[in-house]
Amino acid sequence: MHKRGFASDNNSGVHPRILKAMADVNHGHVAAYGNDKYTAEAIERIKGFFGKESRVFFVFNGTGANVLGLEALTKPWNSVICAETSHIHSDECGAPEKFTGCKLLTLPTPDGKLTVDLIKKHMHGFGFEHHSQPGVISITQATEMGTLYTPDEIRVIADYAHTHGLHLHVDGARICNAAAALDVSFREMIKETGVDLLSFGGTKNGLMYGEAIVFLNPSLADNFKYVRKQGMQLASKMRYIAAQFNEMLKNNLWLENALHANKMASLLAEQVCSLSGVRITQKVQINGVFAQLPPEVIPPLKEEYFFYLWNEETYEARWMTSWDTTEDDILGFTRLLKEMTGSPQG
Amino acid sequence: MHKRGFASDNNSGVHPRILKAMADVNHGHVAAYGNDKYTAEAIERIKGFFGKESRVFFVFNGTGANVLGLEALTKPWNSVICAETSHIHSDECGAPEKFTGCKLLTLPTPDGKLTVDLIKKHMHGFGFEHHSQPGVISITQATEMGTLYTPDEIRVIADYAHTHGLHLHVDGARICNAAAALDVSFREMIKETGVDLLSFGGTKNGLMYGEAIVFLNPSLADNFKYVRKQGMQLASKMRYIAAQFNEMLKNNLWLENALHANKMASLLAEQVCSLSGVRITQKVQINGVFAQLPPEVIPPLKEEYFFYLWNEETYEARWMTSWDTTEDDILGFTRLLKEMTGSPQG
Amino acid sequence: MHKRGFASDNNSGVHPRILKAMADVNHGHVAAYGNDKYTAEAIERIKGFFGKESRVFFVFNGTGANVLGLEALTKPWNSVICAETSHIHSDECGAPEKFTGCKLLTLPTPDGKLTVDLIKKHMHGFGFEHHSQPGVISITQATEMGTLYTPDEIRVIADYAHTHGLHLHVDGARICNAAAALDVSFREMIKETGVDLLSFGGTKNGLMYGEAIVFLNPSLADNFKYVRKQGMQLASKMRYIAAQFNEMLKNNLWLENALHANKMASLLAEQVCSLSGVRITQKVQINGVFAQLPPEVIPPLKEEYFFYLWNEETYEARWMTSWDTTEDDILGFTRLLKEMTGSPQG
Amino acid sequence: MHKRGFASDNNSGVHPRILKAMADVNHGHVAAYGNDKYTAEAIERIKGFFGKESRVFFVFNGTGANVLGLEALTKPWNSVICAETSHIHSDECGAPEKFTGCKLLTLPTPDGKLTVDLIKKHMHGFGFEHHSQPGVISITQATEMGTLYTPDEIRVIADYAHTHGLHLHVDGARICNAAAALDVSFREMIKETGVDLLSFGGTKNGLMYGEAIVFLNPSLADNFKYVRKQGMQLASKMRYIAAQFNEMLKNNLWLENALHANKMASLLAEQVCSLSGVRITQKVQINGVFAQLPPEVIPPLKEEYFFYLWNEETYEARWMTSWDTTEDDILGFTRLLKEMTGSPQG
Repeated sequence: MHKRGFASDNNSGVHPRILKAMADVNHGHVAAYGNDKYTAEAIERIKGFFGKESRVFFVFNGTGANVLGLEALTKPWNSVICAETSHIHSDECGAPEKFTGCKLLTLPTPDGKLTVDLIKKHMHGFGFEHHSQPGVISITQATEMGTLYTPDEIRVIADYAHTHGLHLHVDGARICNAAAALDVSFREMIKETGVDLLSFGGTKNGLMYGEAIVFLNPSLADNFKYVRKQGMQLASKMRYIAAQFNEMLKNNLWLENALHANKMASLLAEQVCSLSGVRITQKVQINGVFAQLPPEVIPPLKEEYFFYLWNEETYEARWMTSWDTTEDDILGFTRLLKEMTGSPQG
Repeated sequence: MHKRGFASDNNSGVHPRILKAMADVNHGHVAAYGNDKYTAEAIERIKGFFGKESRVFFVFNGTGANVLGLEALTKPWNSVICAETSHIHSDECGAPEKFTGCKLLTLPTPDGKLTVDLIKKHMHGFGFEHHSQPGVISITQATEMGTLYTPDEIRVIADYAHTHGLHLHVDGARICNAAAALDVSFREMIKETGVDLLSFGGTKNGLMYGEAIVFLNPSLADNFKYVRKQGMQLASKMRYIAAQFNEMLKNNLWLENALHANKMASLLAEQVCSLSGVRITQKVQINGVFAQLPPEVIPPLKEEYFFYLWNEETYEARWMTSWDTTEDDILGFTRLLKEMTGSPQG
Repeated sequence: MHKRGFASDNNSGVHPRILKAMADVNHGHVAAYGNDKYTAEAIERIKGFFGKESRVFFVFNGTGANVLGLEALTKPWNSVICAETSHIHSDECGAPEKFTGCKLLTLPTPDGKLTVDLIKKHMHGFGFEHHSQPGVISITQATEMGTLYTPDEIRVIADYAHTHGLHLHVDGARICNAAAALDVSFREMIKETGVDLLSFGGTKNGLMYGEAIVFLNPSLADNFKYVRKQGMQLASKMRYIAAQFNEMLKNNLWLENALHANKMASLLAEQVCSLSGVRITQKVQINGVFAQLPPEVIPPLKEEYFFYLWNEETYEARWMTSWDTTEDDILGFTRLLKEMTGSPQG
Repeated sequence: MHKRGFASDNNSGVHPRILKAMADVNHGHVAAYGNDKYTAEAIERIKGFFGKESRVFFVFNGTGANVLGLEALTKPWNSVICAETSHIHSDECGAPEKFTGCKLLTLPTPDGKLTVDLIKKHMHGFGFEHHSQPGVISITQATEMGTLYTPDEIRVIADYAHTHGLHLHVDGARICNAAAALDVSFREMIKETGVDLLSFGGTKNGLMYGEAIVFLNPSLADNFKYVRKQGMQLASKMRYIAAQFNEMLKNNLWLENALHANKMASLLAEQVCSLSGVRITQKVQINGVFAQLPPEVIPPLKEEYFFYLWNEETYEARWMTSWDTTEDDILGFTRLLKEMTGSPQG
C-alpha cells in the first residue's frame, strides 16, 4: 500500500507550518475556553476575510459546525432544504435531526448543486402548522461532488431564501478549495452573496482539528455561546485551534494548500480521462475526481492506492487529492491505471 | 500577571512529550475516523489498564465523554443521580439534559462525594411511570472539590447501583490525579470496583484535547459508534488524539504529571494553611486547594496570579495546580499571600 | 355551506353510540391513568382482535400514536423509511424527528404505497457509523391516497424488514376502513402478516379522541409506559377513551361505520367518474376519492361543500367521506358538480 | 370499596353539564384542528377572563400544557426554577427535559411555595456559558401541597423574574380551586400580577380532558401553533374540548365546582383535626388535606376509602376532594377514622 491514496482529503496529515504554529503557542498558561489572545487574534483574522461585523466561533469538527450552525438558524419545527448528497443528510448519522429536532428535506441533483427551481419543490405549507416550516436552505461549497457554485449562483439562492424568510447556510468543509478554484475572495463568495452562516473548514486543507462557524448575519449569534457549550463543542485549550487558523490564514497558506490540491486533481483527471473504460462523471473543479471504471480494475487498484467507491452499482470511484499529494503520486497511480485498463502508455 | 496562575489545570499547555508524539505521527496518509494503527494501539494500551474486555472510544472533550457516556447508559425517561457540585450538573450548560433527555437529580454534599445514604433520597418511584426512573449514579473521581473516593467507597456505590438495576458512571476528568494520589491502579480503582463506564480525561493532565470513553461493561458499547457520530464527537484525524494517549500511557507520563501536580497542591496547602485569615476548606487530596481568604486580599492577589473564587459569598478560592506548576510558582504565590495577610514570614 | 362537506373524515362528529358509551361510564370514582376496569376491558377487547400476547396502550391522538410508536422501535441514530406522502412525514410538523431524533427517509410513490423495490433505495450503509441506520419501515394502511395494501403485500414488506433487522410500523389512522374494504380481520391483516406495531385509529371512524398503540411484538413494549408518560400522552381520565374503544369494538360498530364511509366514497366515485373534465386519479378503495377537476368549478364547488385541494397545481381534489355521510350528501354534491361541468344530467 | 375515595380529584368523573355540552356540539361537520366556531367562542371566553390581548391554545392534558408552555418560554440552554414538589419536576417522568432540553433547578420548600429568597439560590451564572441560563420561574397555583400564593406573592415573584430577564410560568392544574379560595378573579390573580404564561386546567374540576395554555404575554405565542402540533398536542376534533371550556366558564360552573370541592376539604379537615394521632401538616386552603396518621389505621382505612400516602416514611396522607364529593362521603370517612383512632365520637 502506498503511503498516500485518494480515499479522502482527511486521510492526509497536518501541514508542517500548522504543526509548528501549534508548538509555538505551547508555553505558559492562558485562559481556557477561548478567552485568550490567540483566539482573539484568530477571530480578528477571520473577520478580516468576512467583514468586521461577522461573528466567529470555533468548534471541534465539521459535524459540530454544521449541526450547531443549523441550531442557531432554526426552531425545531423548521425544515432544512438540502441536496440528497449533502453531508448533513448523508454522512452525519442523523446528527442534525437529533440536535435541532428539524426535518431535512432533500432534493436529488445531478451534480450536488441546488437551484431555485429544485428548491421550489419544498417551498410550500407556509403558515400551515401541520407542515414543518421551511427555515434554512443549506448548500455545500464546494459540493460533495466536487462541483462549484459561482458567486452569482449563491446570490440567487440567498436572495430567494431571504425573500421567503429563510436563511442560507453554507457547509464550507472545502471552502478553501472553492475560493482557490474560483479565484474569488471569501468576502465576494460568501459575504457579498448574502450567506447567513458558514461552516468554515480547515481539516481537509491541512489542519489537525477545529472548524470555525462564521455568522455573516451577526444578530443570529447572540446566544450562540450557549449553543456551543450545550452542544459539547467548546474546547478548553482553545489556543491550539486558534493557532491553526492563525497560521492557515497568514501568508496565504490556505490558498497555497488548496491550489495545490486542486491542481493535483486536474492533473489526475487529465491523465485518466482518455483511458479505456474510464469515464469522468462530474466536472473536476476542486480536489476531487469522480470516475466510472472498468469493474475488474477496481480491486487491484484499491490495493495499491486506497480510495472509495462512490457508487458501487455503477463502479463510480471518488478520488480526493490533498495538500500533500505529489505529482509522483498522481503519475504512479495513473501509470498503474493505464496498465490495468490496457490503455496505450502516453 | 505571572505566566502561570492557579485558575485551572486546563489553562496549562501541552506536555512537550505529548506534542512531540503528535508530530511523530504526522506523516503519510492513514484512514480517517479511527481506522488507523495509532488508534488501534491507543485502544490496546487503555485495555491494558482496564481489562481486555473493556471497550474504548475517543471523543473530543470531557463534555462529550460525559454526555455520550450517559446516553449509552440511559433511556430518556431515566434519571441520573449526581452531586450538586458535579460537573455534569453545574458546568455543562444542560448538555446532558439536551442530548439524553434525562433528568438530573442532585444531592448536596459537604465534599463533592456521594454516599449510599445520600443517594437513597432519590431511589424511589421505581415502576411508577410518573417518575423518571433512576438509571445511573454518576460520581466524579477525583471530585470537583479535590476530594477522593477510596476504591472501597466506589465499590459500595457500585454494588448499591447494581443491586437496584442502575449503572455507575465515573467522570474521570482528573482520574490520573486520583490514581496517583491513592497509589492504586486504574484497574483496582475502576474495573475491580464495578464501575460500568468511565470518562477517562487527559486534557487536565498535559494533553491538548481528546478524551476516552471506557466501557468496563462491554455489552453497553454495542451501538456506541453511532452515538458518538450522531453526538458530533467523531474526530476525522483521529491519529492525533491516539498519539496523545499512547504517549501519556507509555513510560508512566500520566503518573509523573499527576504526581507532580498533586505534590504542588500539597506544597501550596502546607504553605498557606497557617496564614492569618486563611482557612483550607476541603481535604487536599489531589491538585486543588480550596481556601477561604480575607476578602481584601483577593483582588490584588488575583492580579498577580489568576484564580477563580469558588464561592463569592464566602470568599472561598479554588487553586488548581498543574503538571507544569513549579515550586517557584508556589513559593512566589505564598510569599505574596503571606505579605498580604500580614502573616509572619517563615 | 352545507353541514357536511368532504374535507376530512375528522370533520365529522362522534357516533351517537360512542357518545352514549362515554356517558355510561360517567359515574363514581375510578383510578386515573388507566388503572380502571373500563381500560382493562378495552385492552382485552383489542387483544381479542390482535392476539393475546399483544400489548395495548391508549394515547390521545394519531400523532402521539405514530411518534411514540416509532420511539419504541428506534434509537435516535436510526432512520425510518416511509412514503413521501405519509402522514408521519408530511403532516406532523416534524414531530417524529423532534421526539425520536431519527431521520425520515422518504420515497416518492405513485399511489402512497411502498414496495420492497422502492424501499431498497434506502437500504444501505448498514454498520457504517456515518449513516443513519435503517431501523423501521413505516407504511400507512389504508394509505393517505386512499389505496390499500393486500395482506400479502404487507407480509412481503414485513418479511423483508425482518430479514434486514428492521421493524414494520403501520399507521392505521384508517385501519378500520382498510379492514372493511378488504373484508379481512385485523388479525389476518396485521398480526399474521408480521407487523410489529400498529397505530390503531378510531377518530376518523366516529370516535371523539383517543388512539391505541398495539404492539404485536410484545417484547418491544416493556418500557413503553414511561415513553407514553414522558411523551405527554397519558390521559388521566382514561375511562373515557376506553369507553369509546369498548363501544366501537362491540357489535361491529367499527365495521358498520367503515363500510358505510367506504360505500359513500364508491358512490361518489361512480357518480363523478364520467363527468366532463373530471378524472379520478387514484383507485377508490376506502373512504376517499382523489379527482382532477376543471379549475373553474373548484371555487364555487368549495363554497357549497367544503373540501381541500390535494395538489393545487394539478387541480386535484381530495374528497373524504365519513361514517355520517349520507346518500343525499353525495347526490347533492354530484348534482352540483354535474351542473358546473356541463355534464348531461343522469 | 366506596365509590368515591380521596385519592385524586382526577379520579372523579365529568360534571353532567359538561357532558351535556359535549353532546350539544355533536352534530354536523366542522373544520378540524380548532378552526371551528366552538373553539373560537371558547377562546373568546377565556380572553374575557384574562384580557383581550392574551392568546389561548387548547391541548390535551396538563403535562402537554406545562411542557409546551415551557418550550414557548425557553431555549434548550435555559434552566427552569421550580419547587422540589412541583408536578413538572416530580410527576412528569422527565417530560420537560426531554422536550425542551432545559435543566430543572429545584428548591426544597416547606409548603410547596417558592419565594424570592429561595429562588435566589439558583440565580447566578448569568452570561457564563458553562451554566444553564435561568430562563423561567415556574410556580403552581394552588400548589401540590394544597397551599396558595396570594396575588401579592405572585406579583413579587413576577417582578423579580422580569427584573432578571426571566419569565413566570404558572401551573394552574387547580387554578379554579385557587381563585375560588382566594375570592379573586383570574385577572387579578394571573394577569395583573404579571404572569407570562398559565397552564389553565379543568380536568381536576369536572372536565373530561383538555387544558388551555394562556399566554398573558402575547408576543411569546407567535409560533406556538407549530410547537403544539410538533408537540403532539393538537386535537383534531377540537370542538369537544372547546365545548367543555365553554360550559365550565359559563354561569360560573368552574366556581361552583371549585367552591364545593374546597368546602368539602375544609369540612374534612375540621372533622379530623382533633382526632387522636391525626396531625394536619399543611394549611387547608383548597381541595386537599395533608395529614399524618397513626400507621396502623392506614391499611384498613385505605380499604374503605382509597387514597395515597404522600410520604410513606412519615405516614402522611394526601386526601383530595372533588366537585362530586358529598358531605356524606366526608362524614362516612371521618366516622370511620374516629373509630379507628379510638377518638370520642362527636
